[in-house]
Amino acid sequence: MTEFIPPGTRWAALPSPFPMKRGGALQDARVAYETWGRLDEARDNAILIVTGLSPDAHAASSAEDPTPGWWQEMLGPGKPIDTDRWFVVCVNSLGSCKGSTGPASVDPATGELYRLRFPDVSIEDIADAAAHVVRGLGIARLACVIGNSMGGMTALALLHRHPGISRAHINISGSARALPFSIAVRSLQREAIRLDPNWNEGRYDESTYPESGMRIARKLGVITYRSALEWDGRFGRVRLESDRPDEEPFGLEFQVESYLEGHARRFVRRFDPNSYLYLSRSMDWFDLAEYADDDVLAALAQIRVERALAIGARTDILFPVEQQEEVAEGLARGGAQSRFVGLESPQGHDAFLVDMARFGPAVGGFLEAL
Amino acid sequence: MTEFIPPGTRWAALPSPFPMKRGGALQDARVAYETWGRLDEARDNAILIVTGLSPDAHAASSAEDPTPGWWQEMLGPGKPIDTDRWFVVCVNSLGSCKGSTGPASVDPATGELYRLRFPDVSIEDIADAAAHVVRGLGIARLACVIGNSMGGMTALALLHRHPGISRAHINISGSARALPFSIAVRSLQREAIRLDPNWNEGRYDESTYPESGMRIARKLGVITYRSALEWDGRFGRVRLESDRPDEEPFGLEFQVESYLEGHARRFVRRFDPNSYLYLSRSMDWFDLAEYADDDVLAALAQIRVERALAIGARTDILFPVEQQEEVAEGLARGGAQSRFVGLESPQGHDAFLVDMARFGPAVGGFLEAL
Repeated sequence: MTEFIPPGTRWAALPSPFPMKRGGALQDARVAYETWGRLDEARDNAILIVTGLSPDAHAASSAEDPTPGWWQEMLGPGKPIDTDRWFVVCVNSLGSCKGSTGPASVDPATGELYRLRFPDVSIEDIADAAAHVVRGLGIARLACVIGNSMGGMTALALLHRHPGISRAHINISGSARALPFSIAVRSLQREAIRLDPNWNEGRYDESTYPESGMRIARKLGVITYRSALEWDGRFGRVRLESDRPDEEPFGLEFQVESYLEGHARRFVRRFDPNSYLYLSRSMDWFDLAEYADDDVLAALAQIRVERALAIGARTDILFPVEQQEEVAEGLARGGAQSRFVGLESPQGHDAFLVDMARFGPAVGGFLEAL
Repeated sequence: MTEFIPPGTRWAALPSPFPMKRGGALQDARVAYETWGRLDEARDNAILIVTGLSPDAHAASSAEDPTPGWWQEMLGPGKPIDTDRWFVVCVNSLGSCKGSTGPASVDPATGELYRLRFPDVSIEDIADAAAHVVRGLGIARLACVIGNSMGGMTALALLHRHPGISRAHINISGSARALPFSIAVRSLQREAIRLDPNWNEGRYDESTYPESGMRIARKLGVITYRSALEWDGRFGRVRLESDRPDEEPFGLEFQVESYLEGHARRFVRRFDPNSYLYLSRSMDWFDLAEYADDDVLAALAQIRVERALAIGARTDILFPVEQQEEVAEGLARGGAQSRFVGLESPQGHDAFLVDMARFGPAVGGFLEAL
């Protein structure tokens, strides 16, 4: 699966064995990451970015890899996360297929791919692996940890499990626990993959990649990542050029269908289906409240950061802004100077990737004042 | 597919040929319906119900079929649609598999099932077929036509194409045109069916029913029919009894997953996949604005009814209440005494089926005043 790994990738070895929260341990595991900017002598200008389910560590272009990254407009010299000031580290989640050890990696014990023999991955494991990258870079304390979507969960787990690891935190379109609507969506995405005969309990290869299942999973993702409001304005009822451009029965006819199709094509065969299943399930399991007798605010209040910002889009149906409001409130109870900002972005959960006009100043303003 | 047809079903023959809006014509087609109550001598106490995609004509129990119907609490003696006063007709949509002619019916020209040789079905065709049932019962003018969900589209098409057919109208969780979010959801439901190898371009039989595709389509339907708000309260993060009750990898673990599974099991093999594809696409195509130079309010204003009520749930993400508000506004422009009511039901699009405490009085109150 080497083709999934961006050229600017570096690796950090994890302690071996690396114990996993839900049982089992990894041998000789590693985490992929990229960096931008320079760590200053006091080592106090580092920012860690932890990502959503699918991104790799290539958040922005760099000397080693000039191709645009998934957060290109947010990160760079003079940008909201200003690499002239900050040393930025983005890690690829443990369990992913973009360079970090995961189900698509070779199990050193057998010489074969892990596939479903990979141990359960929890958000806490992803957080612990990211903490090792930070420590390995000689960083005792981050200036800020920024987490988007699933990364918002990872960041909270990191802060909770590694007290003092960061002075500040930005939680973007994240949450402190999974709620049933998002669990239902992810469960259905996983079922689409599992029902694809090519999935074969995880034993596919390039020639039997479960493409149908991954197409459905991705399109369902895109539907829940965006918002009806945005699409009303963007696509309306506009049709593709000819009245029946797709000769397949019930084929593509409306622009919105073509848009979903484009997203699916850019994703399928570029992500490992087993990794998708593992990371998807890790989000369902995540519930910070399990550390405070099912009281999510109390669990958040156990976290110590000096300053925090929780932001999201009011049109997000997957990680609704009430969940970011909860994060801000809980961190405030823990003593942080904490703020919630609900943005009017029409793009739903994905807004942090595309609505730079709103998310850029929110993130940049917070970091500037650090 | 006879097992899909409730025992109280009656049939109305359609004129033969019955021309279809998008081309082609049906020979010897028929529409299934059920009735409750008595048509009075003046023949002015008739109410027509047109349904969503999946229901049959068995809206409520009757002498012929005492099993509960899909709108059991709404319809009957002393209920909001009071069959002591009203003669109620519920029709099964043309193109469905619950008794009306559709892709699962035998094509008299070949003696074989239509399957994908069935002509395109439009909402307008479904409306015209329902109008024939009404006329065939000797009803010159309905007291009211009630349409839910897809039926809300059908009712508007009926009123638009058959001026004077009804004095009043209740549009429940319906819309005057499909918008891209709902098109995207339905497109993905259809794709899940089409990608199921068993679908085989519509040439399945009982032993090769495309169960995987229909499971995914149904679960995606249920996710969009309900609301996150309801599920937060109803399921939260509650797990099934044992920690890993389902031994399948990535199997069911949370209550919300089991809930979706129950819905899928009750639907799969009880609905014809080709019918599902045809009716699903008919909704995407529906746009009343095509009759008024893309001005949906102007198209609605061409409809003449005396009184109208458009209602829906504020948590509906598939047919958002703004669309019912639009229906009420357009009908008012056409001269109707018209009202929009957005209900606080947490159950989303499906609320009209379950939240009788809110929908019952709204419907009953409107009908009482007729």
